[in-house]
Amino acid sequence: MAESCRRGLFVTLEGGEGAGKTTQIGLLGERLGAAGVDFIVTREPGGTPLAESIRHLLKDYREDPPNAKAELLLFLAARAQLVESVIRPALESGRWVVSDRFSDSTFAYQAYGRGLDLESVRQANAFACGALEPDMTFLLDLDPVRAVERRLGREAATGIAADRFETAGDGFHSRLRKGFLEMAGANPGRIKVVDASMSPREVSDEIWKYLAPII
Amino acid sequence: MAESCRRGLFVTLEGGEGAGKTTQIGLLGERLGAAGVDFIVTREPGGTPLAESIRHLLKDYREDPPNAKAELLLFLAARAQLVESVIRPALESGRWVVSDRFSDSTFAYQAYGRGLDLESVRQANAFACGALEPDMTFLLDLDPVRAVERRLGREAATGIAADRFETAGDGFHSRLRKGFLEMAGANPGRIKVVDASMSPREVSDEIWKYLAPII
Repeated sequence: MAESCRRGLFVTLEGGEGAGKTTQIGLLGERLGAAGVDFIVTREPGGTPLAESIRHLLKDYREDPPNAKAELLLFLAARAQLVESVIRPALESGRWVVSDRFSDSTFAYQAYGRGLDLESVRQANAFACGALEPDMTFLLDLDPVRAVERRLGREAATGIAADRFETAGDGFHSRLRKGFLEMAGANPGRIKVVDASMSPREVSDEIWKYLAPII
Repeated sequence: MAESCRRGLFVTLEGGEGAGKTTQIGLLGERLGAAGVDFIVTREPGGTPLAESIRHLLKDYREDPPNAKAELLLFLAARAQLVESVIRPALESGRWVVSDRFSDSTFAYQAYGRGLDLESVRQANAFACGALEPDMTFLLDLDPVRAVERRLGREAATGIAADRFETAGDGFHSRLRKGFLEMAGANPGRIKVVDASMSPREVSDEIWKYLAPII
């Protein structure tokens, strides 16, 4: 009974497009399952029916694409729903939560990438998620040029077209990377930088090195 | 040429469900047109393709209804898009803008109605609309019981079902009215309270009494 009273660990994977987050979440899930950890996987924006509808407006809606402020507010609306409906209840019941993106993406994309004031973005984010912070974050760091190569390879292989963020130009992806690395520098205890140019297995081993001792 | 450099007037109609805002906007439009005023009409949430999609999530999406914070953030996302794409350009080109709801509805519904902290709501709203405020606001004030009668009459006549806000219970509509009236008391210069239990023509005459001298 004591076990079920312990709060679960909140782990997030962050990084730019093509850094391999989805692959790594799959590999991490296999390892957590094998280790007997009770966990759920979520993704942002998304993870609830409402939030998945918001995801569509954010990523694929090109008729009237959201301006920078609307984009931020839509991400935060999806997060507010996901945190209250899914993440908090899971953590409180003792399950781990592994999320494909969370607040750090908002700071990187909407502040560093889109140019919104970082402090305003932080305040709005704190309101949306009630100050919930990840316990551990893995930043999959990759040169934007390599990321584009990976994306084009994926598009050729799967036929899935790039979304509005993947195709953003004007140095957007370089600003993202700078933002992620600055945040990692400021939060070395929480954010672990992992070289995402390694093979998927090597990246997964690196992540597991940090998590295995906690289990 | 001087005429086109003058900023247009920003007029909003506010009030609870069934207060007659849509009817009054129609009547006001007729009068403004007859007086030769160049104007546009918008509604919230809505007024751009993105914002109309958000409107659907807010009003009719019952599979996974937004929690209070997600609801606020969705309203503000729609507003951020409407202000930047439609309202500001219109005002700057000298046109009047008449909006069916604006920020006062957010304060009434999400703070007084849903119980979110008013100061947090104000800050988030100021971020979303860049501190744009209406020049004149007409609060169509109606007893919630009368409003329900009107709504049931409309449903019987048109077959249009009530949305998620119209059917909110637990004193929601009484808290809204209290909120609207408190804000009107605090902003007597901008917010004019109009008795919405009068006939549509009488309400329209009352509104026009304030606007006619400005034209």
